[in-house]
Amino acid sequence: MIQTPTLILDTEKLRANAARMQTATDRHRVLLRPHVKTSKSIDVARVLLGDGPAAITVSTLREAEFFLSHGIRDQIYAVGITPNKLDRIFALRDQGADLKIILDNVEAAKAVASACAARGASLPVLIEIDSDGHRGGVRPDQVVELTAIAVSLGRHVELKGVLTHAGGSYAARSEADLRRYARLERDGAVAAANHLRDAGYRIDMVSVGSTPTALFTEDLSGVTEVRAGVYGFFDLVMAGIGVCDTSEIAIGVLASVIAVQPDKGQILIDAGWMALSRDRGTASHPVDQGYGLVCTPDGQPYPDLLVLSANQEHGVVGLRPGSGAPLPPLHVGDLVRILPNHACATAAQHAGYDLWDAASGTIQGHWPRIQGW
Amino acid sequence: MIQTPTLILDTEKLRANAARMQTATDRHRVLLRPHVKTSKSIDVARVLLGDGPAAITVSTLREAEFFLSHGIRDQIYAVGITPNKLDRIFALRDQGADLKIILDNVEAAKAVASACAARGASLPVLIEIDSDGHRGGVRPDQVVELTAIAVSLGRHVELKGVLTHAGGSYAARSEADLRRYARLERDGAVAAANHLRDAGYRIDMVSVGSTPTALFTEDLSGVTEVRAGVYGFFDLVMAGIGVCDTSEIAIGVLASVIAVQPDKGQILIDAGWMALSRDRGTASHPVDQGYGLVCTPDGQPYPDLLVLSANQEHGVVGLRPGSGAPLPPLHVGDLVRILPNHACATAAQHAGYDLWDAASGTIQGHWPRIQGW
Repeated sequence: MIQTPTLILDTEKLRANAARMQTATDRHRVLLRPHVKTSKSIDVARVLLGDGPAAITVSTLREAEFFLSHGIRDQIYAVGITPNKLDRIFALRDQGADLKIILDNVEAAKAVASACAARGASLPVLIEIDSDGHRGGVRPDQVVELTAIAVSLGRHVELKGVLTHAGGSYAARSEADLRRYARLERDGAVAAANHLRDAGYRIDMVSVGSTPTALFTEDLSGVTEVRAGVYGFFDLVMAGIGVCDTSEIAIGVLASVIAVQPDKGQILIDAGWMALSRDRGTASHPVDQGYGLVCTPDGQPYPDLLVLSANQEHGVVGLRPGSGAPLPPLHVGDLVRILPNHACATAAQHAGYDLWDAASGTIQGHWPRIQGW
Repeated sequence: MIQTPTLILDTEKLRANAARMQTATDRHRVLLRPHVKTSKSIDVARVLLGDGPAAITVSTLREAEFFLSHGIRDQIYAVGITPNKLDRIFALRDQGADLKIILDNVEAAKAVASACAARGASLPVLIEIDSDGHRGGVRPDQVVELTAIAVSLGRHVELKGVLTHAGGSYAARSEADLRRYARLERDGAVAAANHLRDAGYRIDMVSVGSTPTALFTEDLSGVTEVRAGVYGFFDLVMAGIGVCDTSEIAIGVLASVIAVQPDKGQILIDAGWMALSRDRGTASHPVDQGYGLVCTPDGQPYPDLLVLSANQEHGVVGLRPGSGAPLPPLHVGDLVRILPNHACATAAQHAGYDLWDAASGTIQGHWPRIQGW
């Protein structure tokens, strides 16, 4: 019998989602560099890469090491570098990884420059640009700071380009918003690249991306590549901002009914936050999906049925407040599929993906994933 | 160099916390049955068990299998049973586990009864009691339902006792509240046990517990054992409800500074929600600790310094809104320790514990933990 809770993956949906993004980026004649932080799976990465160039984005050095061991050399480590990681970076490059790092301040640039000088080694670096004020990076109009970073890198470091991530696009509420974030992202990265070119630097890489902006961008002129991660799986946050439909969400958590409590108007399931994650990414959306949308095992949503709260191994399922829908006639032991708020967070709670066969309603295979740093 | 982010454990604090709980339960002459779901580590469990009886509570069958492989036989699986798990339950018992299960409804009781009848095997069962309305269980005053469950178990199943968990105690805001939840928990469990005795059943086990109620209970007459989990590590939720001091929190996430952005009033670190978890358990507290309290590596909190927001591998550190404290003079590469909102959730993001040596400020050993179901 199927053991619950477990993370299931519908590979048909994954393939369709991969094709949609490939078509979107091909239209702009830019490289698609999938972010493997969502799946942390070589099998998923192979679907996303298809027969295109094997170029990826990683969020941890553990990912860099793992994907290099599977032959994927062209990598960007897209988290600002810290000095304690440089030994592993150099080791990865010695093992054949074309690994590029990012940074956004003079202090980090000097640390990298001095490490390279000490080793007599070079390191390709991208400067992180803040195109929408959401997190890290140099603003494109901070020309003095940009140049100061480039100067601090010195002659041992190879300044390859600029990189930005429109994380603010997750707050979009309309197609117009999504297009605006895509414009900000493209314009910010290209402006920063041009400032550096004006200062005499050769800038070969202009890297932008997030799933929403990658799918809704209208202009990528001057951009060389797009990074995106969650598009392979999609999730309720992406559905909530209009990037996908819930029927396109490729992963879910399969759970069993523990108890039906009509007097409390609730159903208990054996998937709590350990299986679903604590992510409440739709809490700020017009439609709050609780800890996830409750579906039949084959992925048909029950009207207004959500995981309303979550303990470690218990989910409390009930109707969306104000709903007139009835509680569905579920019984102890029945299976449900929970669509996740945030695919990256839900997948991170699991050691791999059980491959769901929609035709038979059974699990046909398993793809492992990695974890840790 | 220390690789960040990483989960660190201060074993001195763990030992002190374990001793505090042991003293509290010894005073009431009841068995302490630690919940291993917090640590999922045999090394931590050994500290919690000391030289007392090796009795534990588990939240997954994976835990049951793992701890049995380390010789711990006396276990309660404290999540309502579903039929798909019975094969593994019987296998565990065949391998020598004295594993008890719980349920709270007639449907589950009938499923267990029929599985036992089909195998000609018995299974010790506890009925889950809802002492504070927070999740599952039969209310102690639902005498008809209680008896119906006992009857449905039939003659093949061994009704061992009752179990309750005052999860509502996490919402306590004062010592008086904590004592009230402890009273509800004890009174509810004992009342239910007595109803079943009145109906002719022999009830040997009356199991209660949560860390807050276990530490603040005044009366455990009629109770045979106490379950608690988070007390080994403690966390900001426990500190927020007055159960511990932040100086007693035994785990933390060690992170490196990626960038200092005085213009934005923020510091970026390389611990995001992947390392910290998405748990925002203090969000509903009078003192909201964001995604965690920022400390020096040896655990001294910086005044009002919190992880204000978290992306997958980035934490945004800044001052509590309204604080007059200055941003501390941190630099790229500096280490900080983040105290977690919820120890169970933060530990779950990691493959093990790096053992922090306070005297030298170095890591001296590693204790692995398990994951999955």
